[in-house]
Amino acid sequence: MRFDVLTLFPELIESHMNFSIMKRAVNEGIIEVNTVNPRNYTLDKHRKVDDTPYGGGTGMVLYAQPYVDCYEGVNKEANSITIMMTPQGEPFTDKISNELAEFDQIIILCGHYEGFDERIREIIKPREISIGDFVLTGGELPALCLIDSVSRKIEGTLGKIESAHDDSFSDGLLEYPQYTKPREYRGLKVPDVLLEGNHKLIEEFRLQQKIERTKLKRPDLYKKWSEKNL
Amino acid sequence: MRFDVLTLFPELIESHMNFSIMKRAVNEGIIEVNTVNPRNYTLDKHRKVDDTPYGGGTGMVLYAQPYVDCYEGVNKEANSITIMMTPQGEPFTDKISNELAEFDQIIILCGHYEGFDERIREIIKPREISIGDFVLTGGELPALCLIDSVSRKIEGTLGKIESAHDDSFSDGLLEYPQYTKPREYRGLKVPDVLLEGNHKLIEEFRLQQKIERTKLKRPDLYKKWSEKNL
Repeated sequence: MRFDVLTLFPELIESHMNFSIMKRAVNEGIIEVNTVNPRNYTLDKHRKVDDTPYGGGTGMVLYAQPYVDCYEGVNKEANSITIMMTPQGEPFTDKISNELAEFDQIIILCGHYEGFDERIREIIKPREISIGDFVLTGGELPALCLIDSVSRKIEGTLGKIESAHDDSFSDGLLEYPQYTKPREYRGLKVPDVLLEGNHKLIEEFRLQQKIERTKLKRPDLYKKWSEKNL
Repeated sequence: MRFDVLTLFPELIESHMNFSIMKRAVNEGIIEVNTVNPRNYTLDKHRKVDDTPYGGGTGMVLYAQPYVDCYEGVNKEANSITIMMTPQGEPFTDKISNELAEFDQIIILCGHYEGFDERIREIIKPREISIGDFVLTGGELPALCLIDSVSRKIEGTLGKIESAHDDSFSDGLLEYPQYTKPREYRGLKVPDVLLEGNHKLIEEFRLQQKIERTKLKRPDLYKKWSEKNL
């Protein structure tokens, strides 16, 4: 999987890829993450990439020209998709992450400041994705979330001891409670069923916990799940 | 505002703070971001912080002891809140970001691998927050999203030319389309109303666009907004 990220702050993407599981995935050739900076494409003589909005208002708006030219300069693979990270997009989910993992290349547009000139949307026609109903300084953290989440779906990114299979949302429910050693910590004990080795009972206990937790913490997800499963 | 982040990968937090608006906010003393590593608190002789789950299953579970001891070692200010970043939490929103901006200190617990030993939740009793219905390698990116979003709410973080006021969600709607120079780009023109200087008409146009966009792209938000406003 190849990610090409259009960003005015490539260091935010690059510095993150130097650590942890993402670094390993890059080193092992499972993913490749490139950055390109629209600032290098601006035709403005002062190398500006933004300006005040027509119609007034605070904030700066990103020029269409540097983003569109930069985008057109990216080598496109056959099985490629273009994503714009924006609070106006459809909410990112585990399901979308699975869909995106099927592509060979994901091109990601990161905004900054007050946002993109609308014509960037009109010309590039990206799939617009939001990571939640909150606003950030730029699209770089959302892009990293998308890269991390999609990478986890690709075989080889997670080691043998890790697993995307039992995660929250993989079956539409939140995860069951996890316990590790010791059996008792500050008076709090691991539930007996987990220590007794009866796998059928353990599975039942965990499913029950998942259902209860989802019902309590995320009635919206529970409703969806129960419509399908009950 | 002081953020204390408990993480096994402090570099992921620290490297991000070296750039852009976050760096400026740190340099100007508007926010302070500290990291503490539970690994430095483990009593395990091999400095391990995780182990296999009771009851079986893939993945490693974080020991309670290093996290709880590390948490107890953090100096707490009077007006402080503790947040656990977890896919099981309540979905993070602009509204929660406003609430959190009222605190003097936010302590953030970042998980990794398969998750926290349940007793960490039981002892620390954090407010659990999720940034979306997807799973990531660790809680560091969600923590950075929270730090970025909350910091933007604090006076002084955004410069004079930027503004949190007109953002998506600030009034329950998505943002209106933005345009900057030139008036025409690749045959696409800026809407006339934005060029004519009639502020009342501009405001009407923008509100109309916000409503239409929200209706089209996020019927769930539109429903909430219309129940309040129509």
